[in-house]
Amino acid sequence: MKEYPTNNKNKIKRGAKRGSYNIEQINEILDATSLCYIAFNFEGQAMVQPISFGRKKNMLYIHGSNQNRMTACILEAEHVSVSVTHLDGLLLARSAFHHSVNYRSAIIFGKAHELNSNEEKLVGLKALINHVVPNRWEECRFPTDEELKSTRVIAIEIKEASAKIKHTPVSDNKEYYELDFWAGEIPIVTKALPPISDEKLKPYTQMSKSALAYYKANK
Amino acid sequence: MKEYPTNNKNKIKRGAKRGSYNIEQINEILDATSLCYIAFNFEGQAMVQPISFGRKKNMLYIHGSNQNRMTACILEAEHVSVSVTHLDGLLLARSAFHHSVNYRSAIIFGKAHELNSNEEKLVGLKALINHVVPNRWEECRFPTDEELKSTRVIAIEIKEASAKIKHTPVSDNKEYYELDFWAGEIPIVTKALPPISDEKLKPYTQMSKSALAYYKANK
Repeated sequence: MKEYPTNNKNKIKRGAKRGSYNIEQINEILDATSLCYIAFNFEGQAMVQPISFGRKKNMLYIHGSNQNRMTACILEAEHVSVSVTHLDGLLLARSAFHHSVNYRSAIIFGKAHELNSNEEKLVGLKALINHVVPNRWEECRFPTDEELKSTRVIAIEIKEASAKIKHTPVSDNKEYYELDFWAGEIPIVTKALPPISDEKLKPYTQMSKSALAYYKANK
Repeated sequence: MKEYPTNNKNKIKRGAKRGSYNIEQINEILDATSLCYIAFNFEGQAMVQPISFGRKKNMLYIHGSNQNRMTACILEAEHVSVSVTHLDGLLLARSAFHHSVNYRSAIIFGKAHELNSNEEKLVGLKALINHVVPNRWEECRFPTDEELKSTRVIAIEIKEASAKIKHTPVSDNKEYYELDFWAGEIPIVTKALPPISDEKLKPYTQMSKSALAYYKANK
């Protein structure tokens, strides 16, 4: 399968030429950050909450405490809606009306289920940590049984998804190119700064390979 | 009023010591970006969508075409939930369990209403554009009546809100400081790159003061 199926929920209606259901393209957008926004219903009210996530294959993984309201709500929901968006540039046009942004955006519809056994939970947590910083899982102490017990790990199976990507120069209607207003793009980037070692680190502890690789890939 | 009132919707239960209802602090988080995430109900399903926004006083302004599904849904909703979050750092602990992030997050609950007259729409669009890039509105052609007619402008009055801010060093349980795993923070920053002039700009058109000021404040 190269594309997600489309229906009334995920079919892009506005700006359809910028829309995509391509799985590889959607995964690229998901993998470029570890922050997503999840919608859920609480007492009949649609709410949204940010949370760290990991992706592996067609699964998103999140975790939270056993008391977390959002995780309880999404486990009850028939479908979960998740958004990941990168703002890549501000397009300042000659006309107020043509101001716009460049972006990469993915909307996911999935089904959430809880991972119950320690084995399953470890699979989810590993995917989460290694999504945030690739290969970090192998560089830290694994969770104890007690820690696993206090953590709820949830997998969201991606059932439908769509991406919308806009990377264009600024545009105005023809008649307005005569106007003497500056127009152009302010590119926006999200970057990593050099890793800062914990003050309590032992003097002989070596720099983390995964943290350094992450910095180099994202600086 | 210095703080938003709290209730069952916006009261922070987990990590309450990091929570705040302070209006100035919440506005600072909102003003540090122009991208927000809005939750809405569509056919009983909670959905989330990213959108550009502006803030002025206790109002958020968004706009969209008359056919936009999300804007229609939030106008019908009793309350609208909006999230704005900045990921400021990845905290890599010695233990997988203590991996965390530094962030600034605001959750808004508001009531949406449509701005109908051209005068009201102009107020909303000006607030929106000047939120994205301060003072840009004064540097571009104002919307025509036809453009205003094709645009839906929505104000969301902030009724309740909360912020959650975490800016801490990495932490592990005492007994794990002996472990020889690197721990520390990878700071994450979002920045502007130098403005890129539109290729079709006239040779005598001067650089935009607002774009330059934005770049200098965010580089």
